[in-house]
Amino acid sequence: MEYYSSHISKLIEELGRLPGIGPKSAQRLAFHIVNMPEDQVEQLSGAIRGAKANVRYCKICYTLTDQEVCPICNNPSRNQKQIMVVENSRDLAAYEKTEKYDGVYHVLHGAISPMLGIGPDDIKLKELMQRLQGEVEEVIIATNSSLEGETTAMYISKLIKPTGIKVSRIASGVPVGGDLEYIDEVTLLRALEGRVEL
Amino acid sequence: MEYYSSHISKLIEELGRLPGIGPKSAQRLAFHIVNMPEDQVEQLSGAIRGAKANVRYCKICYTLTDQEVCPICNNPSRNQKQIMVVENSRDLAAYEKTEKYDGVYHVLHGAISPMLGIGPDDIKLKELMQRLQGEVEEVIIATNSSLEGETTAMYISKLIKPTGIKVSRIASGVPVGGDLEYIDEVTLLRALEGRVEL
Repeated sequence: MEYYSSHISKLIEELGRLPGIGPKSAQRLAFHIVNMPEDQVEQLSGAIRGAKANVRYCKICYTLTDQEVCPICNNPSRNQKQIMVVENSRDLAAYEKTEKYDGVYHVLHGAISPMLGIGPDDIKLKELMQRLQGEVEEVIIATNSSLEGETTAMYISKLIKPTGIKVSRIASGVPVGGDLEYIDEVTLLRALEGRVEL
Repeated sequence: MEYYSSHISKLIEELGRLPGIGPKSAQRLAFHIVNMPEDQVEQLSGAIRGAKANVRYCKICYTLTDQEVCPICNNPSRNQKQIMVVENSRDLAAYEKTEKYDGVYHVLHGAISPMLGIGPDDIKLKELMQRLQGEVEEVIIATNSSLEGETTAMYISKLIKPTGIKVSRIASGVPVGGDLEYIDEVTLLRALEGRVEL
């Protein structure tokens, strides 16, 4: 890319390493950044460094936070006896947006995947089991409805069952507002199996 | 977004300002960045600062470069008498990739758009006219085939014609490998009008 300045080539290269950013987007973003006002560029690059330098795992639930204990684990009005297990902090955020869940979370940072060689020791499962030594009434497994998510859910439920703590799994089914016509067969079957009496 | 660390919220906000990056992508990118190795984060944020600090316009063709004169204008084996006019440096890059064009460029940094209130004075048109005082044999107008691109092409050709310098426009037509079935009618008509005898 002799026709670009070496600084732009470098920026395109770095942006292109990010997930979901192909060569074309990287190029568009790079030119946009070069044309941004100086202070906005400073804000962006500062935010990147700042997040990396200051963000760590909550020592209780392992979500990403900048305190030792995240605001959710630290909140006395949340039910600390109900733990929702999610794959990552984005899934936690998704449930928080509902504003209806008042328990706490446990972030696994992954899911068991024999295909990718990710075993139970590669996710924060030991840490979950340790938390169960305390006062816990229910573990709600909210891993994704994918092969890996289901495998992980099964694995965790088998591990917890002997302790006598209640284990539940979020429901699978037709998404609200979803048009049956466009929904895959597995989901339709799940929705049928999980039907509730009216 | 109380459930995110304030540093992550800040990063999501900054990433979300970039073009083509919606809230979901910004969130995904932010979490990816936080999980990247320290030195990669340093590279990314450094590349952003570096590009902004070091990139400027070539004083001849106005492409983005980090020297006073870009490598293309500085290359004695390029035909300096043939100037291709493009809307931006990305379009220049697109033509450079063909490796078949050996003239030089002029980057307008925009196109005339009465709709958006962008007039001839808002793009590097005066600068193009100044270059024509030197020894120039041909100006090839390679603005986009959009309303704005066509308007700009017309405007420039009217401006240059009186000087006696040859002005040409890149051809419009069916893209190579394009399936007629999926090509819009305007392009099909253009391709018909521009047909060449075999």
